[in-house]
Amino acid sequence: MIVVMGIDPGVAHTGFGVVRVAGGSMSAIDGGVIEAPADESAEGRLARIHRQLVELIAWHEPQALALEDIYFGKNVRSAMAVGQARGVAMLAAATRGIRCFDYTPQTVKMSVCGTGAAGKKQVQRMVGALLGLPEPPRSDHTADALAVAICHASQAGTARVIGGAGTESVATALRPEVQSG
Amino acid sequence: MIVVMGIDPGVAHTGFGVVRVAGGSMSAIDGGVIEAPADESAEGRLARIHRQLVELIAWHEPQALALEDIYFGKNVRSAMAVGQARGVAMLAAATRGIRCFDYTPQTVKMSVCGTGAAGKKQVQRMVGALLGLPEPPRSDHTADALAVAICHASQAGTARVIGGAGTESVATALRPEVQSG
Repeated sequence: MIVVMGIDPGVAHTGFGVVRVAGGSMSAIDGGVIEAPADESAEGRLARIHRQLVELIAWHEPQALALEDIYFGKNVRSAMAVGQARGVAMLAAATRGIRCFDYTPQTVKMSVCGTGAAGKKQVQRMVGALLGLPEPPRSDHTADALAVAICHASQAGTARVIGGAGTESVATALRPEVQSG
Repeated sequence: MIVVMGIDPGVAHTGFGVVRVAGGSMSAIDGGVIEAPADESAEGRLARIHRQLVELIAWHEPQALALEDIYFGKNVRSAMAVGQARGVAMLAAATRGIRCFDYTPQTVKMSVCGTGAAGKKQVQRMVGALLGLPEPPRSDHTADALAVAICHASQAGTARVIGGAGTESVATALRPEVQSG
């Protein structure tokens, strides 16, 4: 069994999604958005994000934390702010000995939709389909977090297939069954 | 007495400087660089920076953490990396209820050198002079951290002067004595 937590870090909204690969199928076991109120101080917001991620990590015990590596379309100021949220998320993982993995948006889209040029709606739909959700996640942040978790779970699966251990179940996991809800 | 910790956050080198204003004079009570080895994972480096700052904050009990707000001259990738280090520094403060304050490089230079256009060497020399150090700090990171701490200590002093409490000692602190050695 593989449990991966995906994170879409942000100052105001940090999406998270937890994906489990077991017995050849992939499912979402948690997902949502950590909201950090705008009237709090920057450090108060970071502390809130950190605290909630520490709790989620303790609860789900993921083997890996996956984050999207977004540089495109950001200016330096917003990149620094996103970096601050990424920093506390990575710290929450590191203090429990959990490794962090970065994926470019192209890699995530390729993994979830089969093309690096997929649009936002397409990613949302495929996240819903791959995880057998009754409908796509409503929040972009949750969908993006689940997408990067799926991406890592697939990559981790591939590595394991190449390594030769647990080949069958993981190879199947790379093509998870689409449930109708 | 005011104790301010200044931070110059970075992935590989995080400068810190602790400044105390007491009895009308400003002095450096600590300063140095936290090194995070390049062969460690990104999250491991952040955990190391966080751990050492938590210890320094517990030891010195500053009333405020001051950080330089550097956007100029950074690309999006390096801004995100610096943001990650800033994030764990701000978290280290927040978990002890210490407020964080951002200052632009211009404000810091104005506070330390009397002009926003001061050069790096000039800042280093003035940091050494204002704090009565036998020579300017050798590391840029330590000098920058001490400079932003001096900047905040001066601003905090000004606010207090305007507030009307402790006027005399703090007004004097704005013009700390330059010691020769």
